[in-house]
Amino acid sequence: DFQRALDDVAPKFGAKSQELKAMYRNGFVPYGDSFDLLMGNMDRLIEQGDICLMNILFRTSEKTPLMSVLLQGPPASGKTAVAAKVAVESGFPFVRMISADDMIGFSETAKCQEIHKSFLDSYKSPLSLILIDDIERIIDYVAIGPRFSNVVLQTLLVLLKKVPPDHGRRLLVIGTTSCPHLLQDLGLVHAFGVNQSTSLLEDPLQIAEVLRVAAHLTESDAEAIGNAILKPIGIKTLLMVAEMAKQGSKGGAVDVNVFLECLHTVGY
Amino acid sequence: DFQRALDDVAPKFGAKSQELKAMYRNGFVPYGDSFDLLMGNMDRLIEQGDICLMNILFRTSEKTPLMSVLLQGPPASGKTAVAAKVAVESGFPFVRMISADDMIGFSETAKCQEIHKSFLDSYKSPLSLILIDDIERIIDYVAIGPRFSNVVLQTLLVLLKKVPPDHGRRLLVIGTTSCPHLLQDLGLVHAFGVNQSTSLLEDPLQIAEVLRVAAHLTESDAEAIGNAILKPIGIKTLLMVAEMAKQGSKGGAVDVNVFLECLHTVGY
Amino acid sequence: DFQRALDDVAPKFGAKSQELKAMYRNGFVPYGDSFDLLMGNMDRLIEQGDICLMNILFRTSEKTPLMSVLLQGPPASGKTAVAAKVAVESGFPFVRMISADDMIGFSETAKCQEIHKSFLDSYKSPLSLILIDDIERIIDYVAIGPRFSNVVLQTLLVLLKKVPPDHGRRLLVIGTTSCPHLLQDLGLVHAFGVNQSTSLLEDPLQIAEVLRVAAHLTESDAEAIGNAILKPIGIKTLLMVAEMAKQGSKGGAVDVNVFLECLHTVGY
Amino acid sequence: DFQRALDDVAPKFGAKSQELKAMYRNGFVPYGDSFDLLMGNMDRLIEQGDICLMNILFRTSEKTPLMSVLLQGPPASGKTAVAAKVAVESGFPFVRMISADDMIGFSETAKCQEIHKSFLDSYKSPLSLILIDDIERIIDYVAIGPRFSNVVLQTLLVLLKKVPPDHGRRLLVIGTTSCPHLLQDLGLVHAFGVNQSTSLLEDPLQIAEVLRVAAHLTESDAEAIGNAILKPIGIKTLLMVAEMAKQGSKGGAVDVNVFLECLHTVGY
Amino acid sequence: DFQRALDDVAPKFGAKSQELKAMYRNGFVPYGDSFDLLMGNMDRLIEQGDICLMNILFRTSEKTPLMSVLLQGPPASGKTAVAAKVAVESGFPFVRMISADDMIGFSETAKCQEIHKSFLDSYKSPLSLILIDDIERIIDYVAIGPRFSNVVLQTLLVLLKKVPPDHGRRLLVIGTTSCPHLLQDLGLVHAFGVNQSTSLLEDPLQIAEVLRVAAHLTESDAEAIGNAILKPIGIKTLLMVAEMAKQGSKGGAVDVNVFLECLHTVGY
Amino acid sequence: DFQRALDDVAPKFGAKSQELKAMYRNGFVPYGDSFDLLMGNMDRLIEQGDICLMNILFRTSEKTPLMSVLLQGPPASGKTAVAAKVAVESGFPFVRMISADDMIGFSETAKCQEIHKSFLDSYKSPLSLILIDDIERIIDYVAIGPRFSNVVLQTLLVLLKKVPPDHGRRLLVIGTTSCPHLLQDLGLVHAFGVNQSTSLLEDPLQIAEVLRVAAHLTESDAEAIGNAILKPIGIKTLLMVAEMAKQGSKGGAVDVNVFLECLHTVGY
Ligand SMILES: Nc1ncnc2c1ncn2[C@@H]1O[C@H](COP(=O)(O)OP(=O)(O)OP(=O)(O)O)[C@@H](O)[C@H]1O
Ligand SMILES: Nc1ncnc2c1ncn2[C@@H]1O[C@H](COP(=O)(O)OP(=O)(O)OP(=O)(O)O)[C@@H](O)[C@H]1O
Ligand SMILES: Nc1ncnc2c1ncn2[C@@H]1O[C@H](COP(=O)(O)OP(=O)(O)OP(=O)(O)O)[C@@H](O)[C@H]1O
Ligand SMILES: Nc1ncnc2c1ncn2[C@@H]1O[C@H](COP(=O)(O)OP(=O)(O)OP(=O)(O)O)[C@@H](O)[C@H]1O
Ligand SMILES: Nc1ncnc2c1ncn2[C@@H]1O[C@H](COP(=O)(O)OP(=O)(O)OP(=O)(O)O)[C@@H](O)[C@H]1O
Ligand SMILES: Nc1ncnc2c1ncn2[C@@H]1O[C@H](COP(=O)(O)OP(=O)(O)OP(=O)(O)O)[C@@H](O)[C@H]1O
Ligand SMILES: [Mg+2]
Ligand SMILES: [Mg+2]
Ligand SMILES: [Mg+2]
Ligand SMILES: [Mg+2]
Ligand SMILES: [Mg+2]
Ligand SMILES: [Mg+2]
Repeated sequence: DFQRALDDVAPKFGAKSQELKAMYRNGFVPYGDSFDLLMGNMDRLIEQGDICLMNILFRTSEKTPLMSVLLQGPPASGKTAVAAKVAVESGFPFVRMISADDMIGFSETAKCQEIHKSFLDSYKSPLSLILIDDIERIIDYVAIGPRFSNVVLQTLLVLLKKVPPDHGRRLLVIGTTSCPHLLQDLGLVHAFGVNQSTSLLEDPLQIAEVLRVAAHLTESDAEAIGNAILKPIGIKTLLMVAEMAKQGSKGGAVDVNVFLECLHTVGY
Repeated sequence: DFQRALDDVAPKFGAKSQELKAMYRNGFVPYGDSFDLLMGNMDRLIEQGDICLMNILFRTSEKTPLMSVLLQGPPASGKTAVAAKVAVESGFPFVRMISADDMIGFSETAKCQEIHKSFLDSYKSPLSLILIDDIERIIDYVAIGPRFSNVVLQTLLVLLKKVPPDHGRRLLVIGTTSCPHLLQDLGLVHAFGVNQSTSLLEDPLQIAEVLRVAAHLTESDAEAIGNAILKPIGIKTLLMVAEMAKQGSKGGAVDVNVFLECLHTVGY
Repeated sequence: DFQRALDDVAPKFGAKSQELKAMYRNGFVPYGDSFDLLMGNMDRLIEQGDICLMNILFRTSEKTPLMSVLLQGPPASGKTAVAAKVAVESGFPFVRMISADDMIGFSETAKCQEIHKSFLDSYKSPLSLILIDDIERIIDYVAIGPRFSNVVLQTLLVLLKKVPPDHGRRLLVIGTTSCPHLLQDLGLVHAFGVNQSTSLLEDPLQIAEVLRVAAHLTESDAEAIGNAILKPIGIKTLLMVAEMAKQGSKGGAVDVNVFLECLHTVGY
Repeated sequence: DFQRALDDVAPKFGAKSQELKAMYRNGFVPYGDSFDLLMGNMDRLIEQGDICLMNILFRTSEKTPLMSVLLQGPPASGKTAVAAKVAVESGFPFVRMISADDMIGFSETAKCQEIHKSFLDSYKSPLSLILIDDIERIIDYVAIGPRFSNVVLQTLLVLLKKVPPDHGRRLLVIGTTSCPHLLQDLGLVHAFGVNQSTSLLEDPLQIAEVLRVAAHLTESDAEAIGNAILKPIGIKTLLMVAEMAKQGSKGGAVDVNVFLECLHTVGY
Repeated sequence: DFQRALDDVAPKFGAKSQELKAMYRNGFVPYGDSFDLLMGNMDRLIEQGDICLMNILFRTSEKTPLMSVLLQGPPASGKTAVAAKVAVESGFPFVRMISADDMIGFSETAKCQEIHKSFLDSYKSPLSLILIDDIERIIDYVAIGPRFSNVVLQTLLVLLKKVPPDHGRRLLVIGTTSCPHLLQDLGLVHAFGVNQSTSLLEDPLQIAEVLRVAAHLTESDAEAIGNAILKPIGIKTLLMVAEMAKQGSKGGAVDVNVFLECLHTVGY
Repeated sequence: DFQRALDDVAPKFGAKSQELKAMYRNGFVPYGDSFDLLMGNMDRLIEQGDICLMNILFRTSEKTPLMSVLLQGPPASGKTAVAAKVAVESGFPFVRMISADDMIGFSETAKCQEIHKSFLDSYKSPLSLILIDDIERIIDYVAIGPRFSNVVLQTLLVLLKKVPPDHGRRLLVIGTTSCPHLLQDLGLVHAFGVNQSTSLLEDPLQIAEVLRVAAHLTESDAEAIGNAILKPIGIKTLLMVAEMAKQGSKGGAVDVNVFLECLHTVGY
């Protein structure tokens, strides 16, 4: 039964694995203490750690069949990448990503059915992980009004509280959002059991490390740029601008001024 | 006739019994005076007590064919568990739970039909109990706006006032909610005959007792944690964190600091 | 023609008579002067009285083919009971009750058709009475917003003004509501020709009389309770609590404290 | 052609004539100077008068193919009666009344089609009159919101400005309303060419005359009542109460106190 | 190709010519300097003038394939008449009038299709003119709310900016409105290239001239009335009242007092 | 594979090329430093430049498969022309323009499908460019309310963030808007990676140059007009008025006063 469930969902996962890995295609840099803490907490949801081992609990105990974590943080701070990495590394037999671009132009009802189906499918697997990326897009949120799909919101509120009906099934839900205050008002923050957050890069050393490791800059260039960036910056933005600047420079060396100019162009 | 009605509804109940018991799968701890009072009041709705015996009234009198009680309380304070326990222990031949997760993606009209059907079915049984769990989800409530389904709300308002049409049928409706103020404004609080409430755990002794009995902590650990928790906490939250902390500790012993750390992780 | 019309509608009435009587199944207590005045005014709409005999007018004159009365009062004050009693005692060949629980889940259009049909049917009978119970439910009213069905409201506004098209037909419409201010704002109060109101019980003597006559309490118990109740109370509430208290007491005697405790339980 | 058009519409008119006369079934009392002025102005729209003869204009000139008049006044002041009388007395070959009770439960689109059809039909007749009674009901107006059917409103705004397309056809539109301020805001007052108003009865002599002539009271009774009424009163209300009072009195004589009591009952 | 296009649209124009002329059936009085200026500007859009010859530009240059003018002014100030005159006198092979009364009861989508079709048709003709009369009616505008059809508005905004796709086609769009401020807020004023306005008649001499020429009053009567009118008046209103007054007077002479009385009747 | 993709999309592009060139049919004047800077930045997105070469990056790196730029600026400042020029000169095998006039009267869902299809098609080509012209029209924006299509907005928000799924495909999205503040509030500005803006012409020398080069005015005329224009002006407006003025003048010479008069006529 367990094995069959594993087999059933395996192909789905296989297909998704590529897609998930694409969310952090340039590698993964653990850029500092707060990031390590975050990844530690996330890993404990899927693997063994040392204290407060949610993962042990989750894996070995029959008492917590449903766990959910909301990963919040500013735009471009690497939320999707972290969530996708956790999903891939979980090794869970059932992994599903619910993302707005698979439901473009869907009616509200069709969206609910799609989401509901993912959860119903997950209930068939012994260990499941559902990643709900960019919740504000899933519920069609816009600040003016504000407007959002209440039908989809209610579906999420209900499913986030629903324990898998069959005995021995366990489900981990990871959601990501850039608007925690909105989600708070909508009752969604409370609907998640655990809250974790990503943050922008601030420390020149961390910025330099990311530039060096993920953008392959020389140590001196990375350091110079790290010192020149005065406001916190998202890792996504940092890496994009780094590549822009690299292309505009000779031989891979990146001049600080070229970098700052590119930064300006992207409206930073 | 009575017997046939009993037979008719029996299978339905059988199916539901499991589901209802799952609402308090870790056992049931009567954790203090206010809780005892609540359970006493609830029990009187279904069983014999000593004074103000609503249950006697309800069982033996033909004069009150409809009784309804709204169980309100903060999130995670055990509302659903209490309601489900009362439903299971009532021994009523017809017991039905109306919950949002059975109606995901339903149109407003379909929801009304589903709810209406439950009531129509109940009218066929001599003694019926309907549990409407999480009324705010049933009516698709969200604080921004605020928005809710007026169609479903009106259906509830009407059904909560409608006496079973056939002579000798009696119906008890139990509703649960975390938003009593909302329900007040919607006219729903008034639509219920009786109001009861659950509360958060505050007393170190009560907290310790719950930890000891339901989470199987040692008396000393339970006591230490009970003294370390400084804000009121929901029993649901308490038990979840207890299990998390137990897993992260050696051999079942739970360190206070580990417990507090886990508490922090769940955003308490 | 007249006879045939009578025959046509007779079965309908027969069926409804039971239902209407159920609205005051515990008997009917005329509990004081203001109540007598109300019943007098209502009776004049259907029977002979002495002065200002609307009923005579209505029965013998051909000049007022349409009369309508809005019965307003606080929740639980006995509005539906009074209206149903008048309807049963009218002896009119056509009596119809329009109530929200016959239209649960109907679309707005379907509700309008149902209501319209009742009026069209009434136009076929020489003497008709239509009872529109709980108008706020009929129009799906909720205070938040506020929201209501404008389509149904407009239908009522039009039908309450429309004179039966055929010569010699007469129609009495009785509406009940607990929200007279709302109905004022909606233009519905004005749409009714006559306004009458029920009130809560305040006078210890009246309360005692109701308890004695309708709840079969001993005179001394009734008196004691009457004196112990310090806020106005609806007759519906009073009778419900009386029965609860009777069940909890020995042999039919009711202790004042038991009564007050039950009163507290129902959130009074 | 003219004759055929006349023939075509004749049956329609025949059918409506009865219905229109029912709007003033108790006769018609010209109760004072302001009323005479109103009727004079209205008559000029359909008959010969002496100065400012809109009617001459309308009948003999080919230059004003479209004329419209809005008859506004407080509730119960006799608007519909006046409009219906003018319609009946016009002798126009095409007369149509657009009233909300013929469109109960219609969709907005169906209402527009119905109204449009009346106008299209009118364009076929050489002389047409369309009575739009209670415009606020036609557009489903309610003060809370406010809400109304914009689709129907726009249809009226357009049709009230549209000149009959065929040469030599003339159309008179009469609208009635109790909410001139609303109609002002909606742009409807401006859409009518001419504005006329009815008023409540204030003058004891006028009240007495109405009571004497239309309600067949003795001169002394009528005078006594006229002097006892201290606030302005609608003629519709006055006549209804008069009949109520007559029925409650002996032999047709009406006591002032009986009258005032009945007045009180109708919420005046 | 050019000739065939001309032939194709010719019948359409023929049909419309009558309808357009009906918009100024009583002739056309150029009543003063500001009016001359307006007509001059409008004529330049379709004919040769002397300076700033938009028309030359439009006729001979290939560079401005799309021109649009918004004709705004108070109600009854002659907007439609001016626009229709320009359309008739343009002699353009394709002339189309888009007016609300051709789309009564249309759905928003149907309205868009109708409007779109007019523009698509126009793109087939070498020289086209589209008259959008009473834009506020086309978009179902009402001040309360305010409400309007955004779908239709967007269609106009897009079409007013869209250059005819085929080379060498030219299109002139004339819109009329009484609510320039609304149109400003909706972005419609900006969507038109050119803005022109009509005004009310103020100057006694101009009023007299209009009365004399278009209403055939004697010079002395016209002068007397011109001096008696103290507020600005729309030409449409002036002419309507003039005819009303003429009918009420002997032999065509018009007394000033009769005129003022009629003016009062129309609510001026 | 690459070649086949090229072939597949080629006809589409061919068809569009004409249409795009029509957006700057009168030639293209680089009228000053800020304009040069803008065009430089834009060119870098598609061609080789010297520093901060986004284009190099985009063309040679595999790391930035999605780039998007929002071109904002006042009405008539040449946004569409710039975007179209970039699109034509890109030489990309897949170029698509999404513009509101291709979707007139479409339902929201149909619009989403159309937009989605453009993106899905682009994912098949190795190098694609999508031009979304006048985003406020695409989302049916109007300031009153404000109102807009949330469904279409969400589709854009999602697609602007979605990386082409297949490896090695690259997509450049260019959007234009006159309402950057609106787009900011809607979250659209942030959804674009890069922000660029056009501005009005202010400098007399720039105005003169545009008039000379694109409107073929003599140097002295151009200079005179340049000095006479005191407020910033859009290039689109400037060129339209220049042509109007040329037509009204003799032989191609343009008098300053004639020009200013024409300027006044267009409501500048
Ligand atoms: N820790 C990391 N190490 C290396 N690269 C990273 C890391 N985190 C993010 N990135 C890179 O940044 C890119 C984008 O980040 P991601 O989409 O996760 O941010 P986000 O917070 O989800 O953004 P948004 O708010 O737009 O959803 C990823 O494709 C990945 O390459
Ligand atoms: N008295 C109790 N004794 C033991 N366990 C309890 C008790 N009450 C609640 N629980 C445990 O807490 C869990 C969740 O509580 P429950 O769902 O009833 O809370 P709730 O107030 O309904 O929460 P919510 O606001 O989320 O609906 C139950 O599964 C049960 O195991
Ligand atoms: N005058 C009376 N004498 C005896 N019993 C009465 C009387 N009036 C009401 N009751 C009892 O009260 C019960 C409920 O009253 P009823 O439903 O008429 O109140 P209501 O004002 O319509 O309440 P609601 O506001 O909930 O609609 C009736 O079933 C009847 O038994
Ligand atoms: N001038 C009159 N003479 C005699 N009776 C009249 C007169 N005017 C009105 N009535 C009587 O009053 C009755 C009702 O008046 P009517 O319906 O015209 O008033 P209304 O202003 O239209 O009222 P509402 O505001 O309710 O529409 C008529 O049926 C008629 O019998
Ligand atoms: N210059 C004019 N000379 C003579 N008659 C005119 C003139 N302008 C308007 N009229 C007359 O006034 C009538 C109505 O004017 P028109 O409908 O054009 O006004 P409008 O401003 O469009 O009114 P509305 O605001 O109601 O749309 C026309 O039928 C025409 O007979
Ligand atoms: N740099 C330029 N050189 C020459 N002509 C230009 C230039 N920019 C724009 N134009 C001319 O102006 C016309 C209109 O400009 P365009 O439509 O691009 O402005 P826009 O800012 O998109 O206006 P809108 O705000 O109305 O969308 C073009 O057809 C083109 O002929
Ligand atoms: Mg993300
Ligand atoms: Mg619960
Ligand atoms: Mg009632
Ligand atoms: Mg009326
Ligand atoms: Mg007009
Ligand atoms: Mg543009």
